[in-house]
Amino acid sequence: MTPSAQKETNSNTRTHFTSQLQELPIGSEVKVAGWIEDFRDIGKLGFILLRDVTGLVQTVLVGENLQKAKSIPRQSNILITGVVQGTKSKNFPIEIKVTEIFVFSHASLSLPVDPTGRVESNLDTRLDSRALDLRNPKISNIFILRSNILRIIRDFFSENKFIEVNTPKIIGSASEGGSNLFSFNYFKRKGFLAQSPQLYKEQLVLSLDRVFEIAPYFRAENSHTLRHLNEFLSVDLEAAYLDYYDIMNLMEELIKKILVYMRDSNYFDNENPLFKENSLNDLISIPFPKISYDKCLDELTSVGEKVTFGDDLSDSSLRKLGEKFDKFYFIVDWPLNLKPFYIHEKESNPALSKSFDLQFGHLELVSGGTRQHDVSKLKSRLAEQGLSAENFKDHLRVFEWGMPPHSGSGLGFDRLMMVLLGLNNIREAVLYPRDTSRISP
Amino acid sequence: MTPSAQKETNSNTRTHFTSQLQELPIGSEVKVAGWIEDFRDIGKLGFILLRDVTGLVQTVLVGENLQKAKSIPRQSNILITGVVQGTKSKNFPIEIKVTEIFVFSHASLSLPVDPTGRVESNLDTRLDSRALDLRNPKISNIFILRSNILRIIRDFFSENKFIEVNTPKIIGSASEGGSNLFSFNYFKRKGFLAQSPQLYKEQLVLSLDRVFEIAPYFRAENSHTLRHLNEFLSVDLEAAYLDYYDIMNLMEELIKKILVYMRDSNYFDNENPLFKENSLNDLISIPFPKISYDKCLDELTSVGEKVTFGDDLSDSSLRKLGEKFDKFYFIVDWPLNLKPFYIHEKESNPALSKSFDLQFGHLELVSGGTRQHDVSKLKSRLAEQGLSAENFKDHLRVFEWGMPPHSGSGLGFDRLMMVLLGLNNIREAVLYPRDTSRISP
Repeated sequence: MTPSAQKETNSNTRTHFTSQLQELPIGSEVKVAGWIEDFRDIGKLGFILLRDVTGLVQTVLVGENLQKAKSIPRQSNILITGVVQGTKSKNFPIEIKVTEIFVFSHASLSLPVDPTGRVESNLDTRLDSRALDLRNPKISNIFILRSNILRIIRDFFSENKFIEVNTPKIIGSASEGGSNLFSFNYFKRKGFLAQSPQLYKEQLVLSLDRVFEIAPYFRAENSHTLRHLNEFLSVDLEAAYLDYYDIMNLMEELIKKILVYMRDSNYFDNENPLFKENSLNDLISIPFPKISYDKCLDELTSVGEKVTFGDDLSDSSLRKLGEKFDKFYFIVDWPLNLKPFYIHEKESNPALSKSFDLQFGHLELVSGGTRQHDVSKLKSRLAEQGLSAENFKDHLRVFEWGMPPHSGSGLGFDRLMMVLLGLNNIREAVLYPRDTSRISP
Repeated sequence: MTPSAQKETNSNTRTHFTSQLQELPIGSEVKVAGWIEDFRDIGKLGFILLRDVTGLVQTVLVGENLQKAKSIPRQSNILITGVVQGTKSKNFPIEIKVTEIFVFSHASLSLPVDPTGRVESNLDTRLDSRALDLRNPKISNIFILRSNILRIIRDFFSENKFIEVNTPKIIGSASEGGSNLFSFNYFKRKGFLAQSPQLYKEQLVLSLDRVFEIAPYFRAENSHTLRHLNEFLSVDLEAAYLDYYDIMNLMEELIKKILVYMRDSNYFDNENPLFKENSLNDLISIPFPKISYDKCLDELTSVGEKVTFGDDLSDSSLRKLGEKFDKFYFIVDWPLNLKPFYIHEKESNPALSKSFDLQFGHLELVSGGTRQHDVSKLKSRLAEQGLSAENFKDHLRVFEWGMPPHSGSGLGFDRLMMVLLGLNNIREAVLYPRDTSRISP
């Protein structure tokens, strides 16, 4: 066998994250890497507060190291070699006595945002400098939590026998109406960016039974609000033999798991409006209320809203409902005319549908329902909605191969994060948001 | 509180997946749902073989149920109510004595592919009818394994302190050269579909330290091969303070975890060429060989290939190398001129780069390297490659904020699945593949 190529040696290797230091015995030699959050010089002594993604550590400098530290700009990236020792500081359990400083990379003296949070910047400036903005732990914690919640969601699906699938984002026909699709040249024909995996996930229950997908989707809607983006992460599921009540049960269990995790992980206990204004027990008391669309109309009429059967609920109406139902709740049994062609009618009243929205106050988080699996009814529904069955022929033929009854839902993940963290703008929950005026960085 | 809406009752509810039946006591009453894989009528007795995504069960019919079964086409979706009993069959541990058959949905008598596998279809026909194709357990097992391996990969990243991120798929400038990007109208400007998260994941190590993303990317390359698609799933990671040897170590550990899982789960033991031709111990003996690009040239020259320093390795060359190195191995230290602007040169020989490809035989699975984090060198490299620093200004400014040294890699997940399952066409590993001639279903 040919001898393997060899690594060049490198002594600039971190031994610990800052969060791991307090477990070490006093006297341990360590190398920690991160950025200079602050530097204080009090004469013969100086202090670098070194931050990494896991936390902050105080380091103590004297002599040559102190002299060197004076010339390194804040936010520069460094490696500190030193020894763990006790500290008189009230803010830190231990500190590091520095034996060596190595500078990986100097930061510019002029920075577009202040990651310590002392100087506030507006959201556009922060998003333009997102990487630096993320050095503020209040901001990075949003995305650490986001990552952890994605893991909780996937584990939940696994426990419930869902198979993860990857469906195409490039599609060949403008399904579901299609007025809001981005389109482009795909070799010799027209391609579109998918706005949901709806048709694919339904097709897949024919054989995979229960599927889920967490993926980006795209909507070419020319509107600018605090709660919509043109690219968004969607959590989709579809399950054979379940109905919309089963899906609502799954959503309740999932939300409960996430909230309990947030409580236990203590990330946001003191600052999160969700937990400030509601006890965890109130939030996770399941089942969540299930308010029928009809009942919503009664409620709205009683507070003077003008809305009649068959009308969609306007933002104003949803805000009124959100005042009365101010936590998680479902609006169920929407008029069939308001729902896409693939939603099943209620047998007991075919003007209604087996559908639900999961709301938090006035915000819609999840939309779901029992699907129509009778191909002749699907065709009638398409015709009713002015859609051409010919455009859906690849989809409709699947329903002639022994399609099980099935139900599913789609959850707007960015918006869920917005609610869970009490953020007032969905852009706060997305690393590089895409809206009508923002396509970079 | 307004009383909640109520679920309509439904007795057609599955109690068990078929794989759960053999754990039950004889005499248990069960409801199982799935499709009719086969039906045999031997006079007073009949048998439906009922399949779901977890397995196959034999059910025994007499009397009215047998009469009813005769009229239900194969592949129809049904619910069988019955009682678990012992069986004389050699193929099944138990069987179900049927008390009731409920038909959810009749299958057409004429089907485009035969999911039992008795009649073979060509790949195009199968992909046109993918949902039905997936009723063949040999096919669905590919995607169940795919789902399980995605879980293993994410768990591995979590254990190694990587944070999952979601970077945008719509980008505002044609980065990395950009000749292979799909472009489209994004409101009043031009948008592109990302071909990798490269620039974003590098930016994010400034503050998040270690990040990973598993997401779809897009390449507008007008070529048709057995191992490329125009939409593909990429497993990307980027880590501060690690070098390319550390990333190779991570890749080795990850591949080992996946292979051990495959062995232990027994999915493909008998039919998988990978395991037929190689012992697991041979495959997972790590470290994998690391062959320098220079050494590759020696090997190739010795077998008569004409290739000189600075040439990319052609398909023919890679096939020759793949004959000698026929399992997993790395090609390391590629000429700098062959690598993108963001790859770091080797200090000991600046004509070389700190880069690697993970190969399996002639197939490239992973590409990675240590990144350049010195902004002035990045600018020189852009100029050398004829790229405009102006187009990268959002990216380059991040390197002035105290960027740590970092390394990373991208793994073509569909191609990895192809290798792990010994598939000869990448389309076998993707539910709805996208190539120059295929954009639907």
